[in-house]
Amino acid sequence: MSTDYTFIKACWGQKTDYTPVWLMRQAGRYLPEYMRVRSKCTFLELCKTPELAAEVTIQPIDFLGADAAIMFSDILTPVEPMGMKLDFVPGPVFEHPIRSMADVKALRIPEMEADVPYVIETIKILRRELAGRVPLIGFGGAPFTLACYMVEGKGSKDFAHIKKMMYGAPEVYAALMEKITEMDRQYLNAQIAAGAQAIQIFDTWGGIVSPVDYERYILPYTTKLINGLNRKGIPVIHFVKGAGTMLDSVKKAGADVVGLDWHLGLDRARAILGDKIAVQGNLDPTVLYAPKAHIEAEVSRILNENVDRPGLIFNLGHGILPNVDPENAKFMVECVHRLSGKK
Amino acid sequence: MSTDYTFIKACWGQKTDYTPVWLMRQAGRYLPEYMRVRSKCTFLELCKTPELAAEVTIQPIDFLGADAAIMFSDILTPVEPMGMKLDFVPGPVFEHPIRSMADVKALRIPEMEADVPYVIETIKILRRELAGRVPLIGFGGAPFTLACYMVEGKGSKDFAHIKKMMYGAPEVYAALMEKITEMDRQYLNAQIAAGAQAIQIFDTWGGIVSPVDYERYILPYTTKLINGLNRKGIPVIHFVKGAGTMLDSVKKAGADVVGLDWHLGLDRARAILGDKIAVQGNLDPTVLYAPKAHIEAEVSRILNENVDRPGLIFNLGHGILPNVDPENAKFMVECVHRLSGKK
Repeated sequence: MSTDYTFIKACWGQKTDYTPVWLMRQAGRYLPEYMRVRSKCTFLELCKTPELAAEVTIQPIDFLGADAAIMFSDILTPVEPMGMKLDFVPGPVFEHPIRSMADVKALRIPEMEADVPYVIETIKILRRELAGRVPLIGFGGAPFTLACYMVEGKGSKDFAHIKKMMYGAPEVYAALMEKITEMDRQYLNAQIAAGAQAIQIFDTWGGIVSPVDYERYILPYTTKLINGLNRKGIPVIHFVKGAGTMLDSVKKAGADVVGLDWHLGLDRARAILGDKIAVQGNLDPTVLYAPKAHIEAEVSRILNENVDRPGLIFNLGHGILPNVDPENAKFMVECVHRLSGKK
Repeated sequence: MSTDYTFIKACWGQKTDYTPVWLMRQAGRYLPEYMRVRSKCTFLELCKTPELAAEVTIQPIDFLGADAAIMFSDILTPVEPMGMKLDFVPGPVFEHPIRSMADVKALRIPEMEADVPYVIETIKILRRELAGRVPLIGFGGAPFTLACYMVEGKGSKDFAHIKKMMYGAPEVYAALMEKITEMDRQYLNAQIAAGAQAIQIFDTWGGIVSPVDYERYILPYTTKLINGLNRKGIPVIHFVKGAGTMLDSVKKAGADVVGLDWHLGLDRARAILGDKIAVQGNLDPTVLYAPKAHIEAEVSRILNENVDRPGLIFNLGHGILPNVDPENAKFMVECVHRLSGKK
């Protein structure tokens, strides 16, 4: 069945009748339906309540007509049961960030069925409720992005703590990354076992280092993670924000699809990635603030840059912004479908 | 005289005895000497008091042995006399951001001698006190980066307001950019007239847009600004943060030197920019948090990526970070000099 999904075919680089599209963070604050659910609980409670998480996952499928659903959760969900108390204030905060080998040793690998049962359950509910309408994407943070949060303790502008560890205590950094990679492997495989039909790995901070440091400190772990997934029939999408200058390195991680931000044109990106890798992207999310004529022109430009090559999944170059008019998001999806020939 | 400066020769792409080096924000919070001066006044008072601004400008020349001094000031200094009240809390804040054509029309072009006399005076003091020791760099924000602050009113993560204006009110955006470009032209020419021996244009936010939007909305104004400078004998350095994916566009602005962040290797950057443009960069500023052996290895790597081509000015890929150990900054300068053959 799943081989018939337009989205899945595009992930495999197969020719499709039209260009499939979804939006990163498509279940979220810009949608009044989401805000209605969210007003009754905290963000973490929403992540941990399968019925509600499934409800908000399906909202954008109904409203936008997106070609894939992505399980509602947060990349830090599996980090909490590693032994790190997590709060959202509203950004994520770990009270006791990882700074030493003792901190790394104290981390445990969660038992997925026991420690994140709500993620497994959310996927099962979603497969039932979606009933083949669109495929379901599971996801996780890339090891480096998770490490950034765990070592910094919160968002950061210059990532001083993680880089100090990388450069000054490489053995602590390596031990941490190995542990996160193994957790991530088990976590994503548990999602696949529960029914996820594609996996997206978010490396939100993978682009903060130099290309040389990317190959030294990040790529080995992402590669190991991707190699460790039960990929049979399950495409893996690898999104590294800010990686336009090092796509040749990102390519080596071995994903089926590379997610692109808006800082490099699709034509150039595809020339670097070659014919065997599909791509996902790459509209600047702020374009959804623009008048409709501008949105349509930008969708058209990106489709033209792709010059009808198979293996394109249309998406934003980063998550949809909170104050976007939902009608603009819907119009963007409609433009992608219409301009790429959907009947 | 100035043609003998190693820094100036490197700007012109001439062969030098060793690689010159300075650090963006080399006069700043990481230096105890700076903090001593800064403790007696506000940041803006320091910018507006020529004797103090000159004092902190010279501190890193004495301490680090840098090959160029850069006038201490802020890129927003000339924006205040355009009619925008500026505060630092500690980041810059404009109480009444620009949002309409009426706002743009209300902006005035300052009379430089009357409105920013302290900048002119700082440069004159510095030329006298430096007495030919190292050349003096004047600077300004690129029109787009100034517009970002003026329209957002403060720092931003997604730059929603400026992008809404760009896409939705292009005539307001164009009028604003024209006015800023003319102000900038007069401001930088006043610095040259006062004695600045090189000019750096900081486009801190130039990399937030797609390559297509860079060519549409940013490049025309930077090009006009650079063309309007009294460049005879004065090299122009053009630094666009996050522009590694669009250096071919940045090149078109016509500067003598292109400043590079750390997201693209020097070898690749120089291949795109060609033989006629010098480069400045590109060490990740967080490397100054690393042990000395790592700092030296990274300096060596970058010098090797340059493979002895003339026209390299060593620098960080962005401003030095506040908590860096001053001894590490000094060691970095020493490494650049020693490894590039300074006697």
